[in-house]
Amino acid sequence: MDENFSIGVDFGGTNLRIGSYGGDAELLDTIVVPTRLGDGREAVIRDMCEAIQALSKKDYGNRRLAGVGVGSPGPLELPQGILRNPPNLPGWDGFDLRKAIESGIGREITLECDANAAALAEQKWGTGKTYGVESLCMLTLGTGVGNGLILDGKIWHGSTGMGGEGGHIIVQDEGGAACGCGGTGCLEQYASATAILRMAGEIMGTDAPGSSHEVALMAGAGDPRGLQVFEKVGHALAIALTALINTLNLPLYTIGGGACEAWDLFSPVMFRELHARSYVYRLTAPDVLQPVNLEPHKTYILRAELGANAGLLGACLLPLQEKKDLPAEELLLS
Amino acid sequence: MDENFSIGVDFGGTNLRIGSYGGDAELLDTIVVPTRLGDGREAVIRDMCEAIQALSKKDYGNRRLAGVGVGSPGPLELPQGILRNPPNLPGWDGFDLRKAIESGIGREITLECDANAAALAEQKWGTGKTYGVESLCMLTLGTGVGNGLILDGKIWHGSTGMGGEGGHIIVQDEGGAACGCGGTGCLEQYASATAILRMAGEIMGTDAPGSSHEVALMAGAGDPRGLQVFEKVGHALAIALTALINTLNLPLYTIGGGACEAWDLFSPVMFRELHARSYVYRLTAPDVLQPVNLEPHKTYILRAELGANAGLLGACLLPLQEKKDLPAEELLLS
Repeated sequence: MDENFSIGVDFGGTNLRIGSYGGDAELLDTIVVPTRLGDGREAVIRDMCEAIQALSKKDYGNRRLAGVGVGSPGPLELPQGILRNPPNLPGWDGFDLRKAIESGIGREITLECDANAAALAEQKWGTGKTYGVESLCMLTLGTGVGNGLILDGKIWHGSTGMGGEGGHIIVQDEGGAACGCGGTGCLEQYASATAILRMAGEIMGTDAPGSSHEVALMAGAGDPRGLQVFEKVGHALAIALTALINTLNLPLYTIGGGACEAWDLFSPVMFRELHARSYVYRLTAPDVLQPVNLEPHKTYILRAELGANAGLLGACLLPLQEKKDLPAEELLLS
Repeated sequence: MDENFSIGVDFGGTNLRIGSYGGDAELLDTIVVPTRLGDGREAVIRDMCEAIQALSKKDYGNRRLAGVGVGSPGPLELPQGILRNPPNLPGWDGFDLRKAIESGIGREITLECDANAAALAEQKWGTGKTYGVESLCMLTLGTGVGNGLILDGKIWHGSTGMGGEGGHIIVQDEGGAACGCGGTGCLEQYASATAILRMAGEIMGTDAPGSSHEVALMAGAGDPRGLQVFEKVGHALAIALTALINTLNLPLYTIGGGACEAWDLFSPVMFRELHARSYVYRLTAPDVLQPVNLEPHKTYILRAELGANAGLLGACLLPLQEKKDLPAEELLLS
């Protein structure tokens, strides 16, 4: 590892971010280009492959390229690498992402859902490193709600790569908001930035501001309708976390993404509801919510430490992980 | 293993079942005694230890006792082995089950939640063996709803032994029935035998029969109110399975326990709702629900193959498992 480097791609709906990584928490180089969805899939893949090629030719001394990792919006069918109706990539249903990139760069890639890649980075270089935790569950509150599960230091893909879709845990059984996944009442409809804006509209009508950031500012300034929005966020997170905590009993659940700026607004309700509704949480709740060290046999819910770079850093880590579930993804040494 | 045997205890609220096990799906010997809860905790532990001692003195040729496993009602704090407010063992809160049994028999035991032990047996000798699956999630519809998670052939304890408490996934957000766990709206309140009886009472009033079995008979004979009860069971299972499938993406979820006799009554609603609400299920649903062989990359939900013996067989398997998470549980060779 010390003598190698890897390349990662964070394939976002707005930007492509491509980075090279030498083994520390910091990236060696980063390229950011807009995701030209309007110009078609081939254009996007070409931009991506050109940036990978550019970084692969960099002179990093004795380091050799150990592999290329790609974090993609889901749902992604693995190990094949085929996109299945991705809500944030309209027109990409059935696209063989693995084949397209591998043809473009002439080598195999390690492919993973973006939220899984972000969770891996958070475990290796964020809260997982700070607190020495090998297993964690990450929720990313962004345009949607991403989820990644790291068990014993490894991504839990599930059998078809769709593990960690906790954003679609049902938190409202009846009359729930319609979700892009085709279901109703999913966590994503109550805890994403998109959901914050929708709920603000439902509560405030024409008084609702134009971004989830502004809803957070209003609530932070004491606006009772804004506060109501974040109570709903906290409540929804508690229902979903009850399922995750009671099922998995992990030491750490970490919440990241832009909507986390409102942590102080939604987390009091979240913790109160978790106490009331998850007995595993009640039995293992720590005395100090933001500790210096994690006590053993407790359940912590903490803000993620890595910011917007988590997905890219995780993509760089992907080809350096131990492989066992997905035989197509062999570690490549050029 | 071939030259050893193990002893298992299925610690039930009604009966203690103690068995010896030589490595096949069948037990060597079984002892069943009533669980004398009314005579106090010491009496129950004494009965249990006497039966273990009796089996440990049996002559099984060259076989030596490799270890003793105990499956206990939860919640159970591991690795310590302390019961935490177990709803089916009133008066046992805080009881150090590990210490009591280990003192009584003079050797260490491998302790586990009963539902986890049952899931292990189902993976090794039930549906997991039939279909060659290493990872599965089992729900047991009995007095409560038990849940056990086997990942890559090993019990997923979680960090304090409370992994696999999926019976307490919230399936009704608001106005849900109060649960023994202290929460409301848990799966257990809509899919256990106890819940079937309660829901029958709510729907039929004084016409409700006296057992969940009779409710199933009524529904099976076409009684619309009985059918309504099992629609609620199927609906609740679908909400909980959506959380489990979207998070874990396992190849197999298996449902056991007495209330499974009504499989044909609740499973059509369950599958229909899963299609509507879990997109991971929808993308991976098999063409044939009861297949001869499992197709790869599909999600199957099957009735458990092992019956009432699953918990005891699993308890026997416990001391024979690879240990890594719980250092107190070393494999003992006498």
